[in-house]
Amino acid sequence: MADLMNNDVFLAFSTYATIVVLKMMFMSPLTGYFRITRKVQLKKMLQTNPDVERVRRCHQNDLENIIPFVVIGLLYAFTGPDLSTALLHFRVFVGSRFIHTVSYVLALPQPSRGLSWVVGMITTFSMAYRVLTTALLL
Amino acid sequence: MADLMNNDVFLAFSTYATIVVLKMMFMSPLTGYFRITRKVQLKKMLQTNPDVERVRRCHQNDLENIIPFVVIGLLYAFTGPDLSTALLHFRVFVGSRFIHTVSYVLALPQPSRGLSWVVGMITTFSMAYRVLTTALLL
Amino acid sequence: MADLMNNDVFLAFSTYATIVVLKMMFMSPLTGYFRITRKVQLKKMLQTNPDVERVRRCHQNDLENIIPFVVIGLLYAFTGPDLSTALLHFRVFVGSRFIHTVSYVLALPQPSRGLSWVVGMITTFSMAYRVLTTALLL
Repeated sequence: MADLMNNDVFLAFSTYATIVVLKMMFMSPLTGYFRITRKVQLKKMLQTNPDVERVRRCHQNDLENIIPFVVIGLLYAFTGPDLSTALLHFRVFVGSRFIHTVSYVLALPQPSRGLSWVVGMITTFSMAYRVLTTALLL
Repeated sequence: MADLMNNDVFLAFSTYATIVVLKMMFMSPLTGYFRITRKVQLKKMLQTNPDVERVRRCHQNDLENIIPFVVIGLLYAFTGPDLSTALLHFRVFVGSRFIHTVSYVLALPQPSRGLSWVVGMITTFSMAYRVLTTALLL
Repeated sequence: MADLMNNDVFLAFSTYATIVVLKMMFMSPLTGYFRITRKVQLKKMLQTNPDVERVRRCHQNDLENIIPFVVIGLLYAFTGPDLSTALLHFRVFVGSRFIHTVSYVLALPQPSRGLSWVVGMITTFSMAYRVLTTALLL
């Protein structure tokens, strides 16, 4: 245990994973906020509001992208990469997801949302590549 | 490895994380059970049944809350908290999610569902706070 | 850290977890591909296409099953199982999810999809059983 807390890459992963998961959790109260301000009643679920649906899709997109980052990022941290390379991956991913959320929720013109999504995907693929080339045992 | 299995906080985390993830997995067969008993045919997906939709939303809520707990709880276990404090966090979270599921599926009157959701969120935030104050490396 | 990278069960888990998470991530571009080829316009979200909806449900099913595997599989790897037993679990699970995806996306006749889903569930339950009998601390 003490071992892990002395490992800078693991500390950096802990920090960025926690930040980006907290961001993901923030989507729940944000959906509630939009639901109240857009006066969508839960009793009438068939009545959908475009703003509420956008926040919900953004939350779903977070689940689909942030969870793979957390899983692959943890395994990546154990492959012993350079701290600077690891920090670059973590910062780019977390930054891309914040831009993605702002683009999605505020419905900013494309390609801001699409581009931030692609950047996050590439970052995760890059870490997955290192995991598979370093720790392969099929 | 042996190191981790001798660490009581990690053992407690393993136990509670496994229990709450099994509870989440149980939502799939439960949805199927409601689908059959409420005679909802998959061929006609547009016909939605309120009971089936409630179980599905409960499952989605689990994904949105239990996964953050598992990620942040694992990192929290590595920060070396007191066993009693850690057990308190794990027990309150897992208990809150069982109450949340029962409240949701049986459509119990509020605030049982809302309150159990908030308690789970606060527990995860409390662990995230310790991770960020103990293991910060930006 | 070096400790973990010398542990064969952990290496095998890293490999299979990365592969199956990459498979899950692949569902996003696949949804986009179906959306374009089936000419579904995002502006008119109410118009749903059965092929696109099938890929989306498959992605959701991945989230509901692959994430429990990753969480319980990681904890299972720490319980120190035999490499051959661990490999059997990881291979059966990952294989079952690939069969599940192909069955779902191509709409193959049942029971291919249902059976592959059940096999994946049983594999995860088997690992959860070992975690709870080896690492129990309530």
